[in-house]
Amino acid sequence: MTKTAAVLGGGVIGGGWAARFLLNGWDVRVFDPDPEAERKISDVLANARRSLPGLGNVALPPEGALTFHATIEAAVQGVDWVQESVPERLDLKQKVYGELQAHVPPGAVIGSSTSGYKPSQLQDGFTNAAQIVVAHPFNPVYLMPLVEVVTTDVNTPEVIAKAKEIISAIGMYSLHLKKEIDAHVADRLLEAVWREALWLVKDGIATTEELDNAIRYGFGIRWAQMGLFETYRIAGGEAGMKHFLAQFGPCLSWPWTKLMDVPEYNDALVDLIAGQSDAQSGQHSIRELERIRDDNLVGMMRALGANDWGAGALQNAHDAARMSEAGLARSLDEVADISQPILTQSRVVPLDWTDYNGHMTESRYLDAFAQSTDRLMEIIGCDAEYIASGGSYFTAETHIRHIDEVHAGDPIQVKTRVIMGAGKKMHLWHEMYEGERLLATAEHMLLHVDLKTRRSAPPAAQIEANLTRIAEAHAALPAPEGLGRAIGAPR
Amino acid sequence: MTKTAAVLGGGVIGGGWAARFLLNGWDVRVFDPDPEAERKISDVLANARRSLPGLGNVALPPEGALTFHATIEAAVQGVDWVQESVPERLDLKQKVYGELQAHVPPGAVIGSSTSGYKPSQLQDGFTNAAQIVVAHPFNPVYLMPLVEVVTTDVNTPEVIAKAKEIISAIGMYSLHLKKEIDAHVADRLLEAVWREALWLVKDGIATTEELDNAIRYGFGIRWAQMGLFETYRIAGGEAGMKHFLAQFGPCLSWPWTKLMDVPEYNDALVDLIAGQSDAQSGQHSIRELERIRDDNLVGMMRALGANDWGAGALQNAHDAARMSEAGLARSLDEVADISQPILTQSRVVPLDWTDYNGHMTESRYLDAFAQSTDRLMEIIGCDAEYIASGGSYFTAETHIRHIDEVHAGDPIQVKTRVIMGAGKKMHLWHEMYEGERLLATAEHMLLHVDLKTRRSAPPAAQIEANLTRIAEAHAALPAPEGLGRAIGAPR
Repeated sequence: MTKTAAVLGGGVIGGGWAARFLLNGWDVRVFDPDPEAERKISDVLANARRSLPGLGNVALPPEGALTFHATIEAAVQGVDWVQESVPERLDLKQKVYGELQAHVPPGAVIGSSTSGYKPSQLQDGFTNAAQIVVAHPFNPVYLMPLVEVVTTDVNTPEVIAKAKEIISAIGMYSLHLKKEIDAHVADRLLEAVWREALWLVKDGIATTEELDNAIRYGFGIRWAQMGLFETYRIAGGEAGMKHFLAQFGPCLSWPWTKLMDVPEYNDALVDLIAGQSDAQSGQHSIRELERIRDDNLVGMMRALGANDWGAGALQNAHDAARMSEAGLARSLDEVADISQPILTQSRVVPLDWTDYNGHMTESRYLDAFAQSTDRLMEIIGCDAEYIASGGSYFTAETHIRHIDEVHAGDPIQVKTRVIMGAGKKMHLWHEMYEGERLLATAEHMLLHVDLKTRRSAPPAAQIEANLTRIAEAHAALPAPEGLGRAIGAPR
Repeated sequence: MTKTAAVLGGGVIGGGWAARFLLNGWDVRVFDPDPEAERKISDVLANARRSLPGLGNVALPPEGALTFHATIEAAVQGVDWVQESVPERLDLKQKVYGELQAHVPPGAVIGSSTSGYKPSQLQDGFTNAAQIVVAHPFNPVYLMPLVEVVTTDVNTPEVIAKAKEIISAIGMYSLHLKKEIDAHVADRLLEAVWREALWLVKDGIATTEELDNAIRYGFGIRWAQMGLFETYRIAGGEAGMKHFLAQFGPCLSWPWTKLMDVPEYNDALVDLIAGQSDAQSGQHSIRELERIRDDNLVGMMRALGANDWGAGALQNAHDAARMSEAGLARSLDEVADISQPILTQSRVVPLDWTDYNGHMTESRYLDAFAQSTDRLMEIIGCDAEYIASGGSYFTAETHIRHIDEVHAGDPIQVKTRVIMGAGKKMHLWHEMYEGERLLATAEHMLLHVDLKTRRSAPPAAQIEANLTRIAEAHAALPAPEGLGRAIGAPR
């Protein structure tokens, strides 16, 4: 059943939440008195549609419906989640929570995007305080998985469990703080760097661009995958974390930062920072920077996914949970109709699969087809467990025909036929479609191999039986156009 | 001519420098009285050989020679660079610099890996002070491009220019500070986060693992590509950096951190941090963590390279500078012998091109072949400028035969033949080798297209002429085995 979220307050953060929910199949009801809200949300949504659906390897559900409402009362009707992202003023937020207590469904979670307020400050005095939690996301909300969940003793275990379950269902990660604290966790760390960085610019040690380079050519890349403590654990070497602490613990009281003092926030500092930032990034509009950022984030998160690590591992888990709903079988029993070509892929063309014009690049066609081969292998029982036991199929030959173009963000499906499956041989035929439009075909000859000797060898009996069963069922289909074709041969 | 570096002090940092120099073709002379130094350096070198050569898309030069020497005097003979990475004690460092002034070649740059000392402290009292700079790298030195270069008025412009030139030649980035300062720049930022993070663990707000997740699922991924200021510029939106500053500037004096105070460094804090770190990462040895880290760093940096951004853009520039030396032509004039198959690729199989067993994955063969097609296109004049003018070649059909396996870290070359080039058609034959061993062949039929209409159209006359010239020269070669083969056809 489609779930519904109310988004109170558009803007970059509210719009990001709206996009997260919509693209994960939720209906979203927006309340924002700003006459520009609809345009602002549609800008964020355009960025999100461009990047999020292709972040994973499995298609998301059909997009939910987006509606705008004139009152909070109307927006929160029948919703499962309310996300409050109004400006960071306690009086404004309290006005919203006051209205909410009269109208919000009793089973809904109310999440606040606040970065500055503690949940106790938001709950104070409201009858539905138990429903109110902090759910603090990070920009861009449609790509960054982190949500800081902050609760108090007033929240029930049921509300907390529901909050975490929904955050996970839309592909995000709940960092549930053990206690509430000003600014939660991540912003405290950011504030620390921000303060020291302002000193470094103010004191003329380095420019904003140089400081950004110090981060992105150095610890930023390390932190993208392991964070602070795991990185330092490595620095400690086999001697371990205690060794690292013994080495660097004492530095804490050395004059290595100016953290004990706050730089004066004045016009001169603003002009200095803003001027350097213009020199560094002024050649790109904010929209361009957003798209460059999203291209980079998707590429890096997918690179992490290939290693099943960090944010990429979160995405993989989200993909795995979606396979059945996307119509992808993981065993022969799950194949709905064995007499027809088998759906072996349903996804969106990711940003990192395309050239600078947004067309899917040549090699990614084989990437997609190889993933379809993997899916077919899993279906016949050649799964991770079987491969670990020492057998697998290797591709000997591939023939790809490019029929039509496809762009980043387009939904694609691959349907697979077993042309022949007997003994060591597996002969496959994949067709890639966008809707009814045939994009490419791939013909593959694979051989079953013994992974120890790296030579061809017969598969396990059950695998050959499963493969033969599909091949026999598919034999009744007409031969695919282009089968057995050689390059340069007349059609 | 081969250049030579002296590495004084092995360990993780010195070993990382040794690996950087060696894998970029330098000879390296090590001095380290530690009897374990040779083993320690060989451990780092094993990690570096696994990850660095495949970071880029162009082969590095042949590895230099690594030698160990019993004295500083012997180690620094005839070197172009001396890198000092002895333990962080000023008396130890000064002893090294005292010996250096008697023996180091006058033209050599002396770089110190110190994170704690300013260059003036290292130069003080030595006759060759002008040669001494801080060149502070980041772990793993063989992958992280950042080097903080810190100099004083004593350094000559020639020494500073030479230092930057060499750092760039080994694929790194010089962040040249405008003034010396305690702990340079990046460690000051790290110290800020470290201090606040220790408070958060000590106060029981979050564990080390949760804090690492707060970083790697959130701002760490952002910082890996844009750093702090460019990220905040986006947060400011079209209103710009001043708007962002107006919004967040005042927070500086709010109680959002505990930076004004230093957590007491005692056994209880050490046990708390080390215990949580064991729970978080103890299932992996340090060696495993290093390899996971390097897999992730290579994957993410290569993802950034695909967008020509950040650390990936640095690597691309390093690749471009190496093409000629690697034997790769960029125009027909640069092709040494047009009568033979043309070298269109010389690289090492990168970590992100392989499966969990370290074998190159199926789709990456086409990735490599497609890059070879791009190189051949550039050679005939179908370069970025021509493509921008509206013409290009699209692949219509591909036939790949997998002949033998290849692993991460193996050097591969692709040689390309033009089977036919006339009118709109380009028929190519690629062979991929590791040394003399044939790994795979790829046959491609491409069509020249008008990028506006997306339909086939004749190429520019000069491009057709160049292509025909190669096709005619290659026609004298015997037909390749496997040409025109269809899948399933008898050999």
